[in-house]
Amino acid sequence: MVGSAAGAGAGLCIHQVTLMESCDFRQSTECLARNNVAGTAVWRAKLEEIGVGQAARLLADAGVRAVSLCAGGLLTEPGAAASRAALDDNRRWLDAAAAIGAATMVTLTGGLPNGSRDLEAARQRAKERLAQLLPHARAAGVRLALEPLHPMVCGYRSVISSLREANDWIDDIGAGDELGIALDSYAVWWEAGLAAEIARAGARIVNFHCADWLADTADVRLDRGMPGDGLIDNRGIWRMVKETGFAGPIEVEIFSARNWWKRDPDEVVGIVKERVAEIA
Amino acid sequence: MVGSAAGAGAGLCIHQVTLMESCDFRQSTECLARNNVAGTAVWRAKLEEIGVGQAARLLADAGVRAVSLCAGGLLTEPGAAASRAALDDNRRWLDAAAAIGAATMVTLTGGLPNGSRDLEAARQRAKERLAQLLPHARAAGVRLALEPLHPMVCGYRSVISSLREANDWIDDIGAGDELGIALDSYAVWWEAGLAAEIARAGARIVNFHCADWLADTADVRLDRGMPGDGLIDNRGIWRMVKETGFAGPIEVEIFSARNWWKRDPDEVVGIVKERVAEIA
Repeated sequence: MVGSAAGAGAGLCIHQVTLMESCDFRQSTECLARNNVAGTAVWRAKLEEIGVGQAARLLADAGVRAVSLCAGGLLTEPGAAASRAALDDNRRWLDAAAAIGAATMVTLTGGLPNGSRDLEAARQRAKERLAQLLPHARAAGVRLALEPLHPMVCGYRSVISSLREANDWIDDIGAGDELGIALDSYAVWWEAGLAAEIARAGARIVNFHCADWLADTADVRLDRGMPGDGLIDNRGIWRMVKETGFAGPIEVEIFSARNWWKRDPDEVVGIVKERVAEIA
Repeated sequence: MVGSAAGAGAGLCIHQVTLMESCDFRQSTECLARNNVAGTAVWRAKLEEIGVGQAARLLADAGVRAVSLCAGGLLTEPGAAASRAALDDNRRWLDAAAAIGAATMVTLTGGLPNGSRDLEAARQRAKERLAQLLPHARAAGVRLALEPLHPMVCGYRSVISSLREANDWIDDIGAGDELGIALDSYAVWWEAGLAAEIARAGARIVNFHCADWLADTADVRLDRGMPGDGLIDNRGIWRMVKETGFAGPIEVEIFSARNWWKRDPDEVVGIVKERVAEIA
């Protein structure tokens, strides 16, 4: 063990994507370990670079826990062949999540297929395929964490855009524990009735992602802010999540091409720890 | 009369903001007239440049109708003095809308006050002040057209982000005809249950704004696309709006700093007419 998780970092998870450009898998794992950060969310592309076996060894050696695998799903392409391919991919990703000890796989619906404007059809396909993944998730011992994304990436990445829709889908699918929700403050902070939907979600919330909305946001995907630098009431949202009985960590997930991705990773991790201490 | 509205442009409205950088008030009015576009939405800043009297004369001389004044509201600043100032401003703007013959004033809630993260308090203030504006709107004969904006401008411009919220607010306020809704396809195309909310809105819909969501959207405010160039099912949304009995025009409102604002205004208007013909 390089460093056992302790202190301010013990209940904390920093996503690999927060150190996207400064660290490969090994470097981010070692950076988190030397800063006593207990958990990470593994970025699928980084996992695929080094393979499941090496990833599991690096995490175990460093004493860093894989909280989740980000991200699977992407279930909206039309056609039987696309459906089979998507389901096969997801089953493989679920097995990979299990192999690195991740309790959840963050699951995005996917966006609109190329050339399509039919959101309802895309939603229907994603919902049906999500239901088809449940047996494999159960078998693998990995929960699917359905994550609604901000409406500004509705076309690109997720055809559901609110916690309310995620709750409605899970009601409709009638799933058990194998289907939960990844709640991201950045995605839903604007949502009407958010407090009521968090209470409704209750134990469905299996991951809590956190970032901030910058007043001068310059990109619809890659300009997230550090908690505390923007407009989101992360303290208030975290309090609501805790009130559901949620016992997991705050997970900091920052896509930031213009700022945080360019900074020294130890500096970034240090600032994350300070900011999370102000929320929790 | 420079040109009476006729042909493809008769049921059409092009917002002044669509020609934001190429035309002042007079130039945009004359451009619409010579292209037989029947209506415009007056941009408040352009109106304030030339004054109500001259604006009314220019519109009358050109035979272009002011469909609405954009935009009033901005009701979220805390404090009694801010409240008085906002209500006074809006009463003045309603009088200006009446003076140019606009049937509606597009009304935005406003965003988060500087330094605040309290969305619920901002919503409450905006809703209360909106209700306080009703008597003056009734007296002026101008309908307040409450417009939810896209969640990506929740902090900046509108603390309500969906048609569902606009419907809920109007239910709560219990207003009569003096309070309606400006529905903008760009703002709500991602919304779950949109068809049901449009049906619920029914005759409340007093303006229909239209633009497109570009797959490579590069700015959260100023990168709207021309209908047909993006992901929004404007034909489908327009059909739903028509089914409520809506008899107003399609209003094309494009904020586009990198493209359309740089183009020749007659070219832009010509392309708008072609694209609207494909929707309607």
